Amino acid sequence: MKYVFTNIIGNFILDEKGVVLEKNEFKGLEDYSNREKLEQKLVKKHPQAQRLPQEKILLILKLLRDKSYFSKFKEINTLLTKRDLKASVQEDNLISQAISNLNEIDKIVNIFSKRTREWYALYCPEIVEKIDDQEAFAELIFSKSKAELLKEFKIDPKTSMGADLAKFHVEEIIEVAKEISQMFELRKKHEQYLEKVMSSYCPNLLELAGATIGAKLIELGKGLKHLAMLPASTIQLLGAEKALFRHIKTGSRSPKYGIIINHPFIQNAPKDKKGKASRMLADKLSLCARLDYFKGEFKAKEFRKELEERLK
Amino acid sequence: MKYVFTNIIGNFILDEKGVVLEKNEFKGLEDYSNREKLEQKLVKKHPQAQRLPQEKILLILKLLRDKSYFSKFKEINTLLTKRDLKASVQEDNLISQAISNLNEIDKIVNIFSKRTREWYALYCPEIVEKIDDQEAFAELIFSKSKAELLKEFKIDPKTSMGADLAKFHVEEIIEVAKEISQMFELRKKHEQYLEKVMSSYCPNLLELAGATIGAKLIELGKGLKHLAMLPASTIQLLGAEKALFRHIKTGSRSPKYGIIINHPFIQNAPKDKKGKASRMLADKLSLCARLDYFKGEFKAKEFRKELEERLK
Repeated sequence: MKYVFTNIIGNFILDEKGVVLEKNEFKGLEDYSNREKLEQKLVKKHPQAQRLPQEKILLILKLLRDKSYFSKFKEINTLLTKRDLKASVQEDNLISQAISNLNEIDKIVNIFSKRTREWYALYCPEIVEKIDDQEAFAELIFSKSKAELLKEFKIDPKTSMGADLAKFHVEEIIEVAKEISQMFELRKKHEQYLEKVMSSYCPNLLELAGATIGAKLIELGKGLKHLAMLPASTIQLLGAEKALFRHIKTGSRSPKYGIIINHPFIQNAPKDKKGKASRMLADKLSLCARLDYFKGEFKAKEFRKELEERLK
Repeated sequence: MKYVFTNIIGNFILDEKGVVLEKNEFKGLEDYSNREKLEQKLVKKHPQAQRLPQEKILLILKLLRDKSYFSKFKEINTLLTKRDLKASVQEDNLISQAISNLNEIDKIVNIFSKRTREWYALYCPEIVEKIDDQEAFAELIFSKSKAELLKEFKIDPKTSMGADLAKFHVEEIIEVAKEISQMFELRKKHEQYLEKVMSSYCPNLLELAGATIGAKLIELGKGLKHLAMLPASTIQLLGAEKALFRHIKTGSRSPKYGIIINHPFIQNAPKDKKGKASRMLADKLSLCARLDYFKGEFKAKEFRKELEERLK
């Protein structure tokens, strides 16, 4: 009686006691990929060989105790694991990283903007009060002088409470303002990047949710596959986990929406319709995720129209 | 009986009942600055006028009830407050802002570095492990390709677990790495700026403490003046307030040093001498702050030598 057996090390012909009669050790992952063809070749030489039955599997364990097989086993296993790891990097991971960095940029812009305002207020507090927008503020103070700004906002320079700082002091503040502008630049690049990646990976989600909310949903949903499996009611609350658990624990009011609260469809809904709007939007987003995961049609534009009409 | 009286509104000659016989209203802060000369002029015309005695001060309160005086009073008071505010911006404030921003940059660099490492690890995890320094890491990944890096660190590209990402994915990561490098640039600029400001404002403190620790001491000490008034033992613990209050409250071990722990003099001291070293350093730093505040000599270099010799 002869047996044929194949694992990640190679193809083997064994006798009844597990002694190797002939073998074909794999040289790398390529041989392993062709393992079935290589097995057939070997079987041609031993036509009477049968596939090793389950109850004889102990023979193999004996075989693997051989040191040379053992190290080979480890080696090919490592190669396989590395290959799988390599292949496991998907759009999901890249989207997650980009949207996480985008959120971090928002935090950083806040830190820098607060500091620049406080710092610049020593020089010209009147202007700091006039401009609320962070991006506009940063750009104004590095593109215009104090005198120009005071004139623009019709403030008498004599009444300004700001100190007359030497140029090198002001330049130091302006360096930070420039950094803020660059952060906004990087933020825009990230948005464009997300749009590019998502336009082929999840066009429906991109169309209906937009790049940032869509990416955030993929991140919170732990990838597009998992997101596609979630019920719409869970998608509705993604990002509101804290409030949800507080609701479960203490009986406080249940949250109506998670990250999708930033979607214009919810933002523009009248106050008493926001709950309904978020339910409707989550339904469609769930469909989008499924269409995208199963490479279905592009239907997001229809969904958008439908939503807009139903909310009127 | 005639009285002469001067306040921020002007100079007045009053009769016994507080009726204004003659007045000289100030037109602005300049007149106010010359108030004594202007008063003398008025007194020449009324040589018999006496300075208003304290018990007659009620006459003035009556006078100020007049609406025109009241608004004038408010107007000049506002101008004065603004002038004082303007003059109150000192090196202290500028140093505080710069050192605070420097600390914020450190936090931001940490946030971005963590993210870049995680993101780049999808592409080439082997390199991420090899380089610990954040600045070096950022610079390497935007100045060299994956192939070049793997070669430099003698890693076989075939065994790399990183995914083969398209160029536009890698470029997105590199954008963040560039931002990290720019943060380090800005950090250096802030350091140079602090050195420049401090070299004339507090040369002794700058020499002995260095720019960042010196600036931090000024910030924690609420300005050079206040720092100069603090006992050396307080300077020793500036920045360790949390540990100090925990010590007072719970009887845990008292802290030995605050922010000065980062000073090379303490860093290089043998472990059992660190407490003594910090006491000695704080003594000298306290002297430096006093010399600087009272515009004394430049003695910090001597102090440094003395400290180095005593610690041997």
